Amino acid sequence: MIPNTLYLPELREMLAEQDESGLREFCTALHPARTAEFMEGLTAEEAWTVLQYAEVPLRVEIFGFSEEEKQVEIVETIDRAEIARLIGDLPPDDRVDLLAEVDPQVVEELMPLVPAEERRDIQRLSAYPEDTAGAVMTTEFARLSEDLPVGRAVEEIGRQAEELETVYYLYIVDDEDHLRGLVSFRQLVSAMGKPDTVIGDLMERDIVTVDVKDDQEDVAQKVARYDLLAIPVVDDEHHMLGIITHDDIIDVVREEAAEDAYRIAAVEPLDEGYLKTRLFTLTWKRGIWLTILFLGAMLTALALDEYQAVIKSIPWLVLFIPLVISTGGNTGNQSATLIITALSTGNITLGDWWRVVQRELIMGLLLGGFLGIIGYLCAALAAPSLLAAAGGPITLGLGVVCGTLLGSLLPLLFSRLGLDPAMMSNPFVAGLIDLIGIIIYMKVAIAVLHPG
Amino acid sequence: MIPNTLYLPELREMLAEQDESGLREFCTALHPARTAEFMEGLTAEEAWTVLQYAEVPLRVEIFGFSEEEKQVEIVETIDRAEIARLIGDLPPDDRVDLLAEVDPQVVEELMPLVPAEERRDIQRLSAYPEDTAGAVMTTEFARLSEDLPVGRAVEEIGRQAEELETVYYLYIVDDEDHLRGLVSFRQLVSAMGKPDTVIGDLMERDIVTVDVKDDQEDVAQKVARYDLLAIPVVDDEHHMLGIITHDDIIDVVREEAAEDAYRIAAVEPLDEGYLKTRLFTLTWKRGIWLTILFLGAMLTALALDEYQAVIKSIPWLVLFIPLVISTGGNTGNQSATLIITALSTGNITLGDWWRVVQRELIMGLLLGGFLGIIGYLCAALAAPSLLAAAGGPITLGLGVVCGTLLGSLLPLLFSRLGLDPAMMSNPFVAGLIDLIGIIIYMKVAIAVLHPG
Repeated sequence: MIPNTLYLPELREMLAEQDESGLREFCTALHPARTAEFMEGLTAEEAWTVLQYAEVPLRVEIFGFSEEEKQVEIVETIDRAEIARLIGDLPPDDRVDLLAEVDPQVVEELMPLVPAEERRDIQRLSAYPEDTAGAVMTTEFARLSEDLPVGRAVEEIGRQAEELETVYYLYIVDDEDHLRGLVSFRQLVSAMGKPDTVIGDLMERDIVTVDVKDDQEDVAQKVARYDLLAIPVVDDEHHMLGIITHDDIIDVVREEAAEDAYRIAAVEPLDEGYLKTRLFTLTWKRGIWLTILFLGAMLTALALDEYQAVIKSIPWLVLFIPLVISTGGNTGNQSATLIITALSTGNITLGDWWRVVQRELIMGLLLGGFLGIIGYLCAALAAPSLLAAAGGPITLGLGVVCGTLLGSLLPLLFSRLGLDPAMMSNPFVAGLIDLIGIIIYMKVAIAVLHPG
Repeated sequence: MIPNTLYLPELREMLAEQDESGLREFCTALHPARTAEFMEGLTAEEAWTVLQYAEVPLRVEIFGFSEEEKQVEIVETIDRAEIARLIGDLPPDDRVDLLAEVDPQVVEELMPLVPAEERRDIQRLSAYPEDTAGAVMTTEFARLSEDLPVGRAVEEIGRQAEELETVYYLYIVDDEDHLRGLVSFRQLVSAMGKPDTVIGDLMERDIVTVDVKDDQEDVAQKVARYDLLAIPVVDDEHHMLGIITHDDIIDVVREEAAEDAYRIAAVEPLDEGYLKTRLFTLTWKRGIWLTILFLGAMLTALALDEYQAVIKSIPWLVLFIPLVISTGGNTGNQSATLIITALSTGNITLGDWWRVVQRELIMGLLLGGFLGIIGYLCAALAAPSLLAAAGGPITLGLGVVCGTLLGSLLPLLFSRLGLDPAMMSNPFVAGLIDLIGIIIYMKVAIAVLHPG
């Protein structure tokens, strides 16, 4: 993204003149995300000076909406003690993500300056494996106890509010932090007419939760299924550890979808956007898979080598090799993508494998039959006899059925083995079908044409 | 999904005994989404009877969480007058989506029975083109006027609350429904200590909005960028028409990602999940693209036919045809997927096309060079001379560069033409590269090997 430079001259002028009221106005007038955009052209030093004119909660918000590189730059260049304070104020999930990007040397210098409680929180959160609920959650949420009357609960939430990302779901926990229930802010406010009602009588007890070790993809599916604003994260003993909010869920859904798309095209998933990924990194992430696929594709050369004599006696056979293998490969791509997408959106589970095979087999026969007929008409033009031309539909039909079955079964198999089904990428499926397609093609040709 | 039959016998028993307290308890005890799951095994008649034991807002929620087919079945079989009342109570966006699935004959009978205001609302919402902000928004949102004191505003929201999906963002509109500002429920509650403050002094004026004609993908990008709970939808004159809430945004993100994945694999996007799509529909959605690709692939046969004489004089050339074209195709797939994903997540825009071309060219040269070296070693084993083997790296390198350039430029071109870049599917790119790859391969072979 190109930095928005519209206000840059004015901003610099205000900084030079130390125009306090102007800079305060700049920080508060716009949506914090927009303020962050207008600051993108500033140096880290300048941006930090501007941020000093915003109150702490707003400062944290504007900082949070800045581009990640800018955040890293600020953290690495500004006075350590000041940054340690900022880090103490950032939302727990965001500061862990940020520190993971900062020069480890700087992090080492910063950590002793961060307040003890926040430091422990950072250490705890960083310990959760990537892509699990624990790694996405924030540890700050609105908590109430069961015996609190509504009137006092409202005051209590008022006290907690400044620290919290969301106050719209209030979680009821016991003394040992076991999750007992949930009250929405809306319910609480509606109950304000009866300030003596205790929270325990108001709360819902059937709460949708996720386990801290759950995969973030499963978390996203649950939030989407139940239309939640936030979902509580618990451990094996139902201790409440944190929440995952709707905005993080949108990020997870987008990240997971992009990851699937990359894997399906045999690119190692990128951690950042296309333009932000370094050229060498991107080349590497593509190169490893291309090399593996290339070495696999050599097998097609070996397979063809077996049939040199057949090709020599019937030269026109060669013409249709690309056609036959690409059609099988395309069908396989379709099946693999359909199954991988259905698995990752929860439309099918492993238990559906037999229905999937049946459907794919029928579709393979229908598609193969139809393309076979077209193939027959084409082959009839090139082949020496109508009998010989029968090889066309047979080969195409078999290739397409192979495509549907392999394309659907391989992702299911990978999923069964606990691997990401999207690793069974389209080029991988296509490569396998190249090989099988060539063998089928040649076998059918020999059977039908009886070459020399 | 397999219906959850755990409570089915108990439910049927309670229905037979007309056990009012039991059925009321069943409706209220669980999260409405879970209640809906447990009801999946019931017939439409039975489900409707159970729903009568829930108060209207809860009834609407449980109904809304039921599987779409079940909803349609209930609407089509239960007494029209009763269903018309239910439709009046459903959230405006959901009822339009539902009616689109119901037998048109039934809709025609129902519409006159729906209250006039809701009927007009349905007609207005159905008129927005699919996949635009207008088609996703709901028309019910919390509205306040600027001069209202905080105390009265809280009462007013209390009055509106029952009708509304979310009360967490309150929109300030003037007499002509122009959007003037926004107050969060949290801000309103914090201001309750000063009940005489007017809303106009509290509200934020810089509000992120979308136009009613905006594509839903752009809406999702904005909501993700600004971490919003809901986004207001306005027309050209800044009249407030509705809002789009976070849960609908998650659905949009998932829908768009699946659509891209299907297109990339040359499948016409499905309207429903894999198992729910009828087999014939699915075969058709795959067949049209397979046929187009198949006819395109015939060109490779024609191209090869041109070089029959070359193949006859150097038979081993055939062995490497699948290898060369699949490597170019795989590289093209990677580029196309990277660019399509980057475009749809907003990581690149059309304006970045020159940077993209530069990056892809460099990556093409690096990847092509590396694979060329491996290719050289392989060709050296098969080719009659080391000079002859030089054809290997040249061909592979050119094929890979072609792959990166075509794979990246074609989606950009499609996007420039106002078409979905994902229509430039991987099989399409691969097919084009098959053709170009064969021509390069043969031209290089002729140049290096001078066949008789």
